[in-house]
Amino acid sequence: MDRRLKESLDRIFFPRSVAVAGVSREQDSPGSLLLRSLLDMGFEGKLYPVNPRYEEVMGLKCYPSIESLPGDVDLAILSVPPPAVPGLVGECARAGVAGCVVNTAGFSETGREEGKLLEAEILGAMEGSNLRLVGPNCMGVYSSRGKVALFAGMFPTQGRLCMISQSGSLASITFLSALERGLTFDRIVSSGNELDLNCTDFLEYFLEDPDVEMVLAYLEEIRDARRFLGVARRARGKIPVVLMKGGRTAGGKRAAASHTAALGGSSEILVGALRQAGVILVQDLGELLDVASALHHLPPAGGRRVAVVSSPGGLAVNAADAVEEAGLELSSLAPSTVETLREILPAEGTSPSNPVDLGFGAVRPGVYARVLKAVAADPSVDVILAVGTAPASRKGDPGLLNAITEEMVQAKDEVVKPMVAVFFPGSFLATQFLRLHSAGIPAYPTPTSACRALAHYLGFHSLRDASPSST
Amino acid sequence: MDRRLKESLDRIFFPRSVAVAGVSREQDSPGSLLLRSLLDMGFEGKLYPVNPRYEEVMGLKCYPSIESLPGDVDLAILSVPPPAVPGLVGECARAGVAGCVVNTAGFSETGREEGKLLEAEILGAMEGSNLRLVGPNCMGVYSSRGKVALFAGMFPTQGRLCMISQSGSLASITFLSALERGLTFDRIVSSGNELDLNCTDFLEYFLEDPDVEMVLAYLEEIRDARRFLGVARRARGKIPVVLMKGGRTAGGKRAAASHTAALGGSSEILVGALRQAGVILVQDLGELLDVASALHHLPPAGGRRVAVVSSPGGLAVNAADAVEEAGLELSSLAPSTVETLREILPAEGTSPSNPVDLGFGAVRPGVYARVLKAVAADPSVDVILAVGTAPASRKGDPGLLNAITEEMVQAKDEVVKPMVAVFFPGSFLATQFLRLHSAGIPAYPTPTSACRALAHYLGFHSLRDASPSST
Repeated sequence: MDRRLKESLDRIFFPRSVAVAGVSREQDSPGSLLLRSLLDMGFEGKLYPVNPRYEEVMGLKCYPSIESLPGDVDLAILSVPPPAVPGLVGECARAGVAGCVVNTAGFSETGREEGKLLEAEILGAMEGSNLRLVGPNCMGVYSSRGKVALFAGMFPTQGRLCMISQSGSLASITFLSALERGLTFDRIVSSGNELDLNCTDFLEYFLEDPDVEMVLAYLEEIRDARRFLGVARRARGKIPVVLMKGGRTAGGKRAAASHTAALGGSSEILVGALRQAGVILVQDLGELLDVASALHHLPPAGGRRVAVVSSPGGLAVNAADAVEEAGLELSSLAPSTVETLREILPAEGTSPSNPVDLGFGAVRPGVYARVLKAVAADPSVDVILAVGTAPASRKGDPGLLNAITEEMVQAKDEVVKPMVAVFFPGSFLATQFLRLHSAGIPAYPTPTSACRALAHYLGFHSLRDASPSST
Repeated sequence: MDRRLKESLDRIFFPRSVAVAGVSREQDSPGSLLLRSLLDMGFEGKLYPVNPRYEEVMGLKCYPSIESLPGDVDLAILSVPPPAVPGLVGECARAGVAGCVVNTAGFSETGREEGKLLEAEILGAMEGSNLRLVGPNCMGVYSSRGKVALFAGMFPTQGRLCMISQSGSLASITFLSALERGLTFDRIVSSGNELDLNCTDFLEYFLEDPDVEMVLAYLEEIRDARRFLGVARRARGKIPVVLMKGGRTAGGKRAAASHTAALGGSSEILVGALRQAGVILVQDLGELLDVASALHHLPPAGGRRVAVVSSPGGLAVNAADAVEEAGLELSSLAPSTVETLREILPAEGTSPSNPVDLGFGAVRPGVYARVLKAVAADPSVDVILAVGTAPASRKGDPGLLNAITEEMVQAKDEVVKPMVAVFFPGSFLATQFLRLHSAGIPAYPTPTSACRALAHYLGFHSLRDASPSST
């Protein structure tokens, strides 16, 4: 990518000095919260609150203007009323600031003429300088190593995922929900109206970093779509890009226009081109995290043949349906595997072929783990889908569920093939979900969600095998 | 329905006396667990453990045979090895028992000839008597008022839902997961191989009871399909029937055959006929409960026009997409409503048209509830979809989420129109989900799952309006 663009982005995501304009002594003003977010992250560089009305804010010396700052500024975060933005951006441009985050909303997304004019003024104020701008109408950047954040209360997480989101709150929800699945981020950008830097710039920046594991995106409009497709295509089969597109319908497009001034493009053509470029398209936040979890936790698979192991028989049937409906295959277990399973399982109320139904066999300690290992040893099995739910017990008694969870975790040490878990019901299983993810076993609430995620994960790895090894 | 069949089923679901054959002193033998389940339910009638080897089990006098019992028996639960079943069924037939539950597995579902022969022997042993049989290869019946249960650890719940499940464990999982959504059951049957009584008998029995609110079903094969369709058609638009069909694919059908000896029929034709009969078809357990929750908690709606109220803008766009993708409509808010919303909301970073984006407005106390009430007062709004998720905070701090939850609950008192909530992420929101359901607000993890459930709920109520008022 363009070397100068990369340098700007490096200074934005890994700033040695940050100015925050629009801080106040109100604890919950947007500017104060942004300053707070840097303190929460333990930002280690120089931090300059800017507001001509104060001498000191949150124990830090406060400066009257960008021009009055004592040193170079890599990143300036602007949270001031819309009419004050162009002037402040001009100050940043003259002061040699590398990047501005314009947090303020009230620009083209309002649909009003003043908003568009103000955006034109901002661009005018930047002209001829090296200043680059994130936003307006955004939450800016999170950088785990750079120690900057979108919101107060965020914290460094030492992950290798990146995210581009045209919605700040959606980025924040994703950050938090991902944690439960053992997914953590290195960098996130909330890019808002994308007046200057756009999703394509960020995608290229992230994908060219060999340490980046995966890029998640929530986009309402893909600005610079042709270049976006080219960038994605180069990463096809190398780094997964998982995209939740907002504005898929007429109603969604109208909503996106007033949210981030997004112009709805020709969706069907775009969707087809994105798929061809290897981008994984998902429909909602649940699917976004489901897919990311499979891609993160699982090793590459040898193929699409899935073995289902289930304690409840009804869910074994449902899982078999889900496997085929997601375009995957059910393994035909080798006769010797079936024989081994027959020895492990009681003769009645179970099934030793795929989907393997443990009946109440799972209740006996050790059976679940032995079955998983026997199935994993079968050369016809590429992926294992382990469904584990116990018969009814009062809510407060997760004893059997914990036992099955532990057998999955124990089997994981010997099972080198990709394995996912399905546990239903969801919400009082938080403990089991956390335990499984911490052991590298992605967990899902239904066979359907597990199989959709597996299909995307397998699709990605099949591209990887097909793509040339050189970049 | 047939009067004699109804009498048999009444005696099975509301027995005054129950015999349990196959009890032992092993605490976790299937027979002992079934006896335990009756004690856990607080069964109030006569209880007869049967086993020639014991004089007493769990503090109850134990009898050597069915014939030796001192009084009439409504329900006999048989948990003995397969070869002993036909003889015991014959005893029940001669003793005038109303219904047998044959818990034992190892019959036609094994695919082996002996299993089929044993089933024929069972039928032979019943011939000429009034005895009816549930199973074999099943968990039998749960009846909240009748105080019988499928599994040890179940308890009376005083609900008005019924369920028919060809999988016992799936019934038990549903029972438990439904609790979290404020859904409770009056009767459940785990019908297994359906050698005698089948899903159609149970459907007719449940649907003819005017106190039954809804019937959920998990079926791998619909035996007596023509009659099933007729029974469902009569309830069309009156009592919702929500069906999760197992064995939708070739792999699922094979799994169903070894699970409950289900023969895959001509699926596409059946699916079409079921839809025409007003049956709501769902794909997995999550969707089953999502739909049941909307049907249970919400009043009938005036139409399909949905207003979205969202604190995060990205999810507002996603919700608008989900509304249209589910075949629902976005309301066009009246100019006066938009004006009211403009007064409530800050000018920037929000949107006062549908989907209503509260930006960070939701952070200010009272705003969320005021917006909900303003939107609900608009005559163009039939249904309200409230998305509430707060910006990132460390996991242990649900303060803002709780505040939004309480505002939804508070608004509910004044909002008479149907309202659903969307909260993401799921698993650490268990508290908020429980609170919302207890207030009659169905809660979902994503706009997609909420809109799918709403579409089914609205579809049902539109049939209700169209159907003649007489039964």
